[in-house]
Amino acid sequence: MATSEPTATGGDQDPNSANLRPSSTNYDAWMQGCTRKLGLKICGFLQKNNSLGEEGRLAGSLSERQKNLYSCDNSDRDARFRRTETDFSNMFARDLLPAKNGEEATMQFLLELVGILTNYVRKTFDRSTKVLDFHHPHQLLEGMEGFNLELSDQPESLEQILVDCRDTLKYGVRTGHPRFFNQLSTGLDIIGLAGEWLTSTANTNMFTYEIAPVFVLMEQLTLKKMREMIGWPSGEGDGIFSPGGAISNMYSVMIARYKYFPEVKTKGMSAAPRLVLFTSEHSHYSIKKAGAALGFGSENVVLLSTDERGRVIPADLEAKILDVKQKGYHPLFVNATAGSTVYGAFDPINEIADICEKYNMWLHVDGAWGGGLLMSRKHRHKFSGVERANSVTWNPHKMMGVPLQCSAILVREKGILAGCNSMCAGYLFQPDKQYDVSYDTGDKAIQCGRHVDIFKFWLMWKAKPQHTNVCFWYIPPSLRGLEHNSEEYREKLHKVAPKIKAMMMESGTTMVGYQPQGQKVNFFRMVVSNPAALQSDIDFLIDEIERLGHDL
Amino acid sequence: MATSEPTATGGDQDPNSANLRPSSTNYDAWMQGCTRKLGLKICGFLQKNNSLGEEGRLAGSLSERQKNLYSCDNSDRDARFRRTETDFSNMFARDLLPAKNGEEATMQFLLELVGILTNYVRKTFDRSTKVLDFHHPHQLLEGMEGFNLELSDQPESLEQILVDCRDTLKYGVRTGHPRFFNQLSTGLDIIGLAGEWLTSTANTNMFTYEIAPVFVLMEQLTLKKMREMIGWPSGEGDGIFSPGGAISNMYSVMIARYKYFPEVKTKGMSAAPRLVLFTSEHSHYSIKKAGAALGFGSENVVLLSTDERGRVIPADLEAKILDVKQKGYHPLFVNATAGSTVYGAFDPINEIADICEKYNMWLHVDGAWGGGLLMSRKHRHKFSGVERANSVTWNPHKMMGVPLQCSAILVREKGILAGCNSMCAGYLFQPDKQYDVSYDTGDKAIQCGRHVDIFKFWLMWKAKPQHTNVCFWYIPPSLRGLEHNSEEYREKLHKVAPKIKAMMMESGTTMVGYQPQGQKVNFFRMVVSNPAALQSDIDFLIDEIERLGHDL
Repeated sequence: MATSEPTATGGDQDPNSANLRPSSTNYDAWMQGCTRKLGLKICGFLQKNNSLGEEGRLAGSLSERQKNLYSCDNSDRDARFRRTETDFSNMFARDLLPAKNGEEATMQFLLELVGILTNYVRKTFDRSTKVLDFHHPHQLLEGMEGFNLELSDQPESLEQILVDCRDTLKYGVRTGHPRFFNQLSTGLDIIGLAGEWLTSTANTNMFTYEIAPVFVLMEQLTLKKMREMIGWPSGEGDGIFSPGGAISNMYSVMIARYKYFPEVKTKGMSAAPRLVLFTSEHSHYSIKKAGAALGFGSENVVLLSTDERGRVIPADLEAKILDVKQKGYHPLFVNATAGSTVYGAFDPINEIADICEKYNMWLHVDGAWGGGLLMSRKHRHKFSGVERANSVTWNPHKMMGVPLQCSAILVREKGILAGCNSMCAGYLFQPDKQYDVSYDTGDKAIQCGRHVDIFKFWLMWKAKPQHTNVCFWYIPPSLRGLEHNSEEYREKLHKVAPKIKAMMMESGTTMVGYQPQGQKVNFFRMVVSNPAALQSDIDFLIDEIERLGHDL
Repeated sequence: MATSEPTATGGDQDPNSANLRPSSTNYDAWMQGCTRKLGLKICGFLQKNNSLGEEGRLAGSLSERQKNLYSCDNSDRDARFRRTETDFSNMFARDLLPAKNGEEATMQFLLELVGILTNYVRKTFDRSTKVLDFHHPHQLLEGMEGFNLELSDQPESLEQILVDCRDTLKYGVRTGHPRFFNQLSTGLDIIGLAGEWLTSTANTNMFTYEIAPVFVLMEQLTLKKMREMIGWPSGEGDGIFSPGGAISNMYSVMIARYKYFPEVKTKGMSAAPRLVLFTSEHSHYSIKKAGAALGFGSENVVLLSTDERGRVIPADLEAKILDVKQKGYHPLFVNATAGSTVYGAFDPINEIADICEKYNMWLHVDGAWGGGLLMSRKHRHKFSGVERANSVTWNPHKMMGVPLQCSAILVREKGILAGCNSMCAGYLFQPDKQYDVSYDTGDKAIQCGRHVDIFKFWLMWKAKPQHTNVCFWYIPPSLRGLEHNSEEYREKLHKVAPKIKAMMMESGTTMVGYQPQGQKVNFFRMVVSNPAALQSDIDFLIDEIERLGHDL
């Protein structure tokens, strides 16, 4: 049935092996007590009454440190609540804090929501639930069982708000489901989720130390650790978290240009010769997007040929550099991909670095997908030579399972991000502040306000990397034995994956991506990055593909 | 004492008036029951036992619709839990889902976290707490009372993770505190917070309808409503949510260039004449950053003179356009600011639009800060002429109090975003999908993965806008009566605001920003955008400034 013809780079581990479940070293302290199944429906527990007596009894059994958790730090208020039988149908947003006496309504509302969310979390990991309940856009727009997406002019009650929340989850896609393989970002990490809930509660902004002291320091320490893992001496260098891998890659192109032609910042592209960027034909399209956006032009992004496993051929790079030079253009920048989007291929960084040194070019490594392997003793060799790069993109929100968004651009040369991007806005980056303003990171960014993406990652640092891409065609019985190279065969095979995917989405049982690549017609890309996926889930996917595609 | 010399544009309402508290129309259903103060410490309630009997009794009192809230939709599992006396000191991340039998540990952990978060929310609105507990970077890096920011190689227990969460909040800044006036984004909206918690639980990506069907449609409907408010016929046009106002403004420059010189996308800036952008000397620095990043060069961003209230002088714009044309350059783009960052000034859009039409230029309106006024019958006139703009930036995360990040770039011409940015990546935007792929929005963006920023805003749509900037100097007694125009006076006055701000941060009682602007030495910028702020909080700020600055 399924064949693995296209390639399986990155997958030199059997995807069905223990590789999928990292060893439990340091995680031995499994609580026996957690397995007890007792009492109360989780989806309704937020409406329960509690008595103070029970709290008192409980507190006696807690450790000293744990008691600190519950203490109301730096507040002497002895606020006391009882879970009330809250009817939200006559309550509105205005009844919540900061409304006078809005405290109890706020607590009851948030806890009600948490009941909906934890119920969703529980079901996300439950293989008996569907991955999605697919509907076409027009169906959702028409309104499903009272779920009205239209914006109203009148405020809805808090009850309706809560119903909207439940319905939003109901008609969405469970990206953390053990059988969701559709994207490079999969899984629902509970620690990461906790980090995001806290981040949104803190609701602050990374641009100054002033209003994000803890997060700014966490970012600084984490970037340093990441640079150490890249292998730059003492973890020195520069970096910032950006809204995603495409923006991180865009940063790399900007700073490469600034390094060699700093006057472009003030005078524009006309101050430089015609600049050329090089990247794999298999690389992420964001390099080309950056070329278009930043004024290079997409035609000045030269695509490099790859071998049968999707890796850049260094000789092709050198030949194309020489060709560009011969035309009188300036070869500026090479992107080496560490974990390509479709095949999961790793370009040979050392050989590319040799060429970059020879021609005095900027070397960027796009490890958006593969970056997590830098933390793995076993797989780090795939990044061999990365310490020679000038910049690296690394998205913890992909292989490392950190919730979206979490992407870092790391740079070997200190200060170059600020040099490239600073505009010294007086209302934010006042030089006469009382603290060390080198901690104000905002002027390094192309953004002004910047979301806090660091905390969840900082909290999840312990997570172990794991991943593989396996690409394959499913050949339905009707096509087996036919001449593979005929145009008719290729046309028919090209239609198989989209048909299976459509049926798969209708049935909602699992999700996997497909695409063509170069001369290869549509094939499936199996991403094994979801920590919830077991061998049986991969078997399930294969069985589903066979079931859905058998009669095509 | 405090004088309001610089300006007070945007503040034609008395900031101490009822303007700060929007009228309660449609919000009459205040629950009397919410005011009851009963029972249990909120910071410890997550450790309580519940009994099924209580749940049964409760359910009887709920409405039919509300019962639906608690029903476990599309799951037949009758999972039952009892809140256990959980000791997290021997539990680790690996004990949480997707670990086998990890469900109860996961629920207990998340609920414990929610206890910490709701406690923080409660204190955020409590005027008896500090806005911040300030520490210098070196102090936090050395470790405060056991709060260690360093990343460990060994996994921490869940108890320690929870302690880390509590400490992270403890040493942060309460941006929702009624006395936080430091940034344009202030306040902690409970509905928005609920939206963010749900968004991070859903943890999906906006690039395709496939994995974000509900959110993609919400974005589409919301963008349409926003375009209707701008006044474009039938709300037609284009748009996308971006990671912030700076990126939204960058989009506007990119699409303006694409509109007039589409070949720049493929051939680079050398395919166009020298292009010039125009923006107010008071405008946000992101226009200049975009000019530098996109290859125009910051010198080709011409700054326009303003009147005494910080508004662009149209005659100056026209004179500078003529000057640029005379030099043989091409005037491409004008940014009109609707709510400037420091003064809150509104440029005269209609007069600027006349000039843009005359010279065939792109008109962008940066309403990042002021955009919320488009929803106000009373204040909308400040945006008079906005319907003539080609593009508009509008950040609901500023005046409208939506949690960070939430910024929209809105465009009058349909399809131009995709034209400008699309690269047609085969692995994401397969044309042979089973649904209408015009709903796949990813290729319009300069990003690939894109965080879900829409849901919280959709949920908060009812929120009423409100804002004002009031800029003022505090003149300490030692400077009163001196010659205002002397250099000595100016030097001394320039140091007053930083000194007061430093003392304010040390005491942690309130926060307000300061900056110089043009020839004006450092002054305070009072932002009245925080819905929790009462007249008494503004009085408090003024009193604090007087107290801290009296002896300077």
